[in-house]
Amino acid sequence: MRTTRRAGVAYGVDIGGTKVLGVAYADDGTVVAERRASTPHLSIDPARAPGEASVARAGGELADAAAGVVRALRADLSGEPGPVGVGFPGMVDFGGVLRFAPHLGAAAGADVRTLVSRRLDGEPVQVANDANCTAFGELALGAARGFEDVLVVTLGTGIGGALVMGGRIVTGAHGFSGEIGHMVVDPNGPPCPCGKRGCWERYASGGGLARLAREAALAGTLEAAVALTGGDPEAVRGEHVTSAAASGDPGARRVVEELGWWLGLGLANLVAVLDPEVVVIGGGLARVGDVLLDPARAALAALVEGGSVRPPVPVRPAALGEHAGAIGAALAARGDEGAPSSTVPPRTSGG
Amino acid sequence: MRTTRRAGVAYGVDIGGTKVLGVAYADDGTVVAERRASTPHLSIDPARAPGEASVARAGGELADAAAGVVRALRADLSGEPGPVGVGFPGMVDFGGVLRFAPHLGAAAGADVRTLVSRRLDGEPVQVANDANCTAFGELALGAARGFEDVLVVTLGTGIGGALVMGGRIVTGAHGFSGEIGHMVVDPNGPPCPCGKRGCWERYASGGGLARLAREAALAGTLEAAVALTGGDPEAVRGEHVTSAAASGDPGARRVVEELGWWLGLGLANLVAVLDPEVVVIGGGLARVGDVLLDPARAALAALVEGGSVRPPVPVRPAALGEHAGAIGAALAARGDEGAPSSTVPPRTSGG
Repeated sequence: MRTTRRAGVAYGVDIGGTKVLGVAYADDGTVVAERRASTPHLSIDPARAPGEASVARAGGELADAAAGVVRALRADLSGEPGPVGVGFPGMVDFGGVLRFAPHLGAAAGADVRTLVSRRLDGEPVQVANDANCTAFGELALGAARGFEDVLVVTLGTGIGGALVMGGRIVTGAHGFSGEIGHMVVDPNGPPCPCGKRGCWERYASGGGLARLAREAALAGTLEAAVALTGGDPEAVRGEHVTSAAASGDPGARRVVEELGWWLGLGLANLVAVLDPEVVVIGGGLARVGDVLLDPARAALAALVEGGSVRPPVPVRPAALGEHAGAIGAALAARGDEGAPSSTVPPRTSGG
Repeated sequence: MRTTRRAGVAYGVDIGGTKVLGVAYADDGTVVAERRASTPHLSIDPARAPGEASVARAGGELADAAAGVVRALRADLSGEPGPVGVGFPGMVDFGGVLRFAPHLGAAAGADVRTLVSRRLDGEPVQVANDANCTAFGELALGAARGFEDVLVVTLGTGIGGALVMGGRIVTGAHGFSGEIGHMVVDPNGPPCPCGKRGCWERYASGGGLARLAREAALAGTLEAAVALTGGDPEAVRGEHVTSAAASGDPGARRVVEELGWWLGLGLANLVAVLDPEVVVIGGGLARVGDVLLDPARAALAALVEGGSVRPPVPVRPAALGEHAGAIGAALAARGDEGAPSSTVPPRTSGG
């Protein structure tokens, strides 16, 4: 895709709901350094302290984390220069402002591009939605490579998404496309941090798994997962359930299968709307693998409109795994063509 | 958009769940003839008579209706030749086969392009999804004109949809994009002809209105609409409710407002996924106007993710009204650039 190749590295950072992952990605296609940090627990309650100052402070805490990871990666490489890209879990507009972020609500409205840039001596920084970064990485180097029309889904604390059409990421009129996690699949469902009820991510994300797990643990059907916590049903987290399911525990498998059914339901909705060739699943929860993806594939096939007559849509895990978002941010930073961080919405052509 | 203009007319036919509407569209931009017919009640139950022969027979009944309308239009114009385009309410693939059609299930699998062509002495025929035809008409001449990113929604017996991105209709990998009516919004909802439960069109289409109206009539809250039927609650149809609502009857307005809320809920899901600049509402139900669209606008603003911070997305009625689909089919027939009936999926470019 690139017409010129510059020797050196690009730095990419993926900010998730719970962790920050950064990579130094070399032009020879290798990850030459990797750093992690916890996503800061933003100390500001936007309901109690609204206003520009507190938004800037919360955005600054995120920017500190991103810039800290970049500085650590650079230190690993003896200060090697290179462009910087950062993916954020929320609606990032074409001006580099994080407009809305259900899991980082206090920072909504912050000019994250400027805030990160200031912490790196004013050097230019590319910012984009984290799922768009994941899609950009998977499209260039991973499971979406060679496809024209792809739905990319990131399963983390919440659910992110990116739309690839005609081989390129489509960012929508304002840069906000792919907010698939907040598609309502039951208006009477559980409340969501976004302010609505019954959003898809309440059922099919890491947060959804935690909810399903808690219900099952309290109902007494998750003994193996509860044992992994030392016996406290209240302490059951998603990773206990996925571990127990991977070991074959029937109660844990039932929870993961229910999670997979909800995942497949939402995929069926999105396949009907978008008609992709393939679905690529990234984010931390994708590591669970076929224990989760097989029930999702079955539900997708059963629930998508015309499932018996349309070509099957494969559901594949992201090939770059949890690094996809950070690598995609690095590719965007170095200016690869079609990067989702561009300030102009992509155009379609042909027909 | 066109590089060459041929004098004369193009014939466009829009096949809906209940009616067939055809127009002769002249190159000067006027509708010079118009014909209507009822959509044939397909006589074949696919569950009882599966197989290619019965599919071809049902498809032939649809093709008879389409070709009959074209012949009638041509007779109105003393036999004037001109290309023919037909929109079908269902999943039409790039080979001209109607793959799936919840409201015309018996014809699913029929090669409708060939079937219509055979009835017109073998002349070439363009076929496409009806909502894509509506979008093509509105994009060239109507409410979507001048926009790059548009969601087009057709509210008829069911709900159809079309996606415009970068000023062009995006048909998906197989031609099936925009099947928005079968997005599940409540997995425990009422059964849908597509085989699932709780599809959006069970709540927000003409069929959804009929269901809501029946419930309200039997509950005794729709007296004005029941009066329009001569007093039979079982006979209440959508048009009785929309008439009574337009006259200000509170019970009927409540039903239309509930319909509008569901319309807004689905639009909120789709705006989050697609991030359009504008939503254009076509189909027969769009005629109801602001009594329906105002509650939908309010629900969209309240329910879309980040509704308080994203630019408002206007919801506009189709400017070509019920003719949009037939006019769009005519424009596709005459080969206007970017027509949804092309056999190659559109590409995106730029970024």
